[in-house]
Amino acid sequence: MIERIAIVGTGLLGASAGLALRAAGFCGSIAGWNRSPEQAQTALQMGALDAVATDPLQMARESQVVLLATPVYAILDWMEQLAASLGPTHLVTDVGSTKAQISAAADRLFNQPDRAAFLPGHPMAGKEPSGASLADAELFRGAVWMFTDKPAWNRSTASTELVRNWRGWVAAIGAKVIDIDPARHDELVAWVSHLPQFVATGLSALLEDQVGNAPELKDVGGRGLREMTRLGASPYSMWRDIAYTNTEAVQAALFALEQRLAHIRENLRTPELRDEFDKANQFRKD
Amino acid sequence: MIERIAIVGTGLLGASAGLALRAAGFCGSIAGWNRSPEQAQTALQMGALDAVATDPLQMARESQVVLLATPVYAILDWMEQLAASLGPTHLVTDVGSTKAQISAAADRLFNQPDRAAFLPGHPMAGKEPSGASLADAELFRGAVWMFTDKPAWNRSTASTELVRNWRGWVAAIGAKVIDIDPARHDELVAWVSHLPQFVATGLSALLEDQVGNAPELKDVGGRGLREMTRLGASPYSMWRDIAYTNTEAVQAALFALEQRLAHIRENLRTPELRDEFDKANQFRKD
Repeated sequence: MIERIAIVGTGLLGASAGLALRAAGFCGSIAGWNRSPEQAQTALQMGALDAVATDPLQMARESQVVLLATPVYAILDWMEQLAASLGPTHLVTDVGSTKAQISAAADRLFNQPDRAAFLPGHPMAGKEPSGASLADAELFRGAVWMFTDKPAWNRSTASTELVRNWRGWVAAIGAKVIDIDPARHDELVAWVSHLPQFVATGLSALLEDQVGNAPELKDVGGRGLREMTRLGASPYSMWRDIAYTNTEAVQAALFALEQRLAHIRENLRTPELRDEFDKANQFRKD
Repeated sequence: MIERIAIVGTGLLGASAGLALRAAGFCGSIAGWNRSPEQAQTALQMGALDAVATDPLQMARESQVVLLATPVYAILDWMEQLAASLGPTHLVTDVGSTKAQISAAADRLFNQPDRAAFLPGHPMAGKEPSGASLADAELFRGAVWMFTDKPAWNRSTASTELVRNWRGWVAAIGAKVIDIDPARHDELVAWVSHLPQFVATGLSALLEDQVGNAPELKDVGGRGLREMTRLGASPYSMWRDIAYTNTEAVQAALFALEQRLAHIRENLRTPELRDEFDKANQFRKD
């Protein structure tokens, strides 16, 4: 039974996890730490945490489950530090956006009988902009939460039990669990998450150059324009790590879309355009 | 005073205009005609029309204001037919998505003292998918409605009064009127409306090829993916006319975005990526 949870990174996802666990009936303790102490205080005031820690490694040692809710490179850093501090009665899990490097680190540093377990996870939920003040107990309801667990990992009995228990809490807060291979995860999210983000960023940046000096003209675009650029508000700090840790898959997806847009551009007056609309209509119908 | 309105094309925009006029207190008659009679019957049943016409030219002659609410090429066809049937006590106006060709036809066929007036218009409102059954009296509230009227047009006194009156009704149904040059209109909408549409179509079609056979994987993309592909449901029938009548401006916008995406692809691991995110963030802040 999980009774003590520690959240490292109490921004939107970390604080929302705290609120969601409470709403789902978790009665144990939830401690939190954040690089920026104000975010941790906000999470505390919202009821996402019981306590704000000053020493994150001590907080982790005193807990059973550590949830890493930071950008990917910070997760990789914490994995190095925590592996040396924790043992077979601990589980570390995360919400990082790419999984190949994190799963490789989990293989190297965790998941042996005398070490802590690491369960790599990725909830497909977020908002733009982010921050603890926007945390929401319902953020994960209906959202997919992927795990890239490996059957070959040989964990202690205690930490295996914590993994099973944590999976139960993820289901309890309303997420749909999907188990997937880490390489397949990174390829899939390159198409359905990273590509839409970089397209929204490129479109928003281009329009800032074209019509940014005439804000009233943005009204002309209406709802379609607002939706197609909403992700343009996403923070670089998070997406830099994604761009670095999933570079090849994102490059392939972007290149494929560039080719597709060129095809549309060259066929604005041919029947090929109908095929593109038919296929796009089909995507929305499935 | 406008007392008799005729709507040619009673799909989403035409039927919504009827509902919005009624909601804003228009007490005169509203007749309608649609190529597909079921759409006209639906509009009638919803209260957007008082009567469904069987002879659209006779309907137009018996009205003071004719609203053309069809795709662009059908508007151009109706303009030819109506110019020969109507006179200086009539106003024809439209909701067409591109304005250069329509404004040129208005110049050639209308807007002389012995002819009907033509006021080219374009409300930035819509839904995907479309159809009379989705009509909404509030569709135009807060939306921009552009007019590409020309000061040089020399209209009859009666039709000038109808133009003034129609502008009043457009404001009364909650739209924000912007007057703009037709060439500038077409360039502007290429950036803020047509580019987002063709990007959504290209992205949706590409993802249909990549993940279309695994519908459950679309859940992984979440809200961001849904928003970035919603316009993918837009009908070819409407966008074909836009692609044909605004080809050069759309080609320029698509080419610029292709270049931008290539720039992002080549800089996923350089500080240039931060500049793109900063600029995109700025677009959303303005």
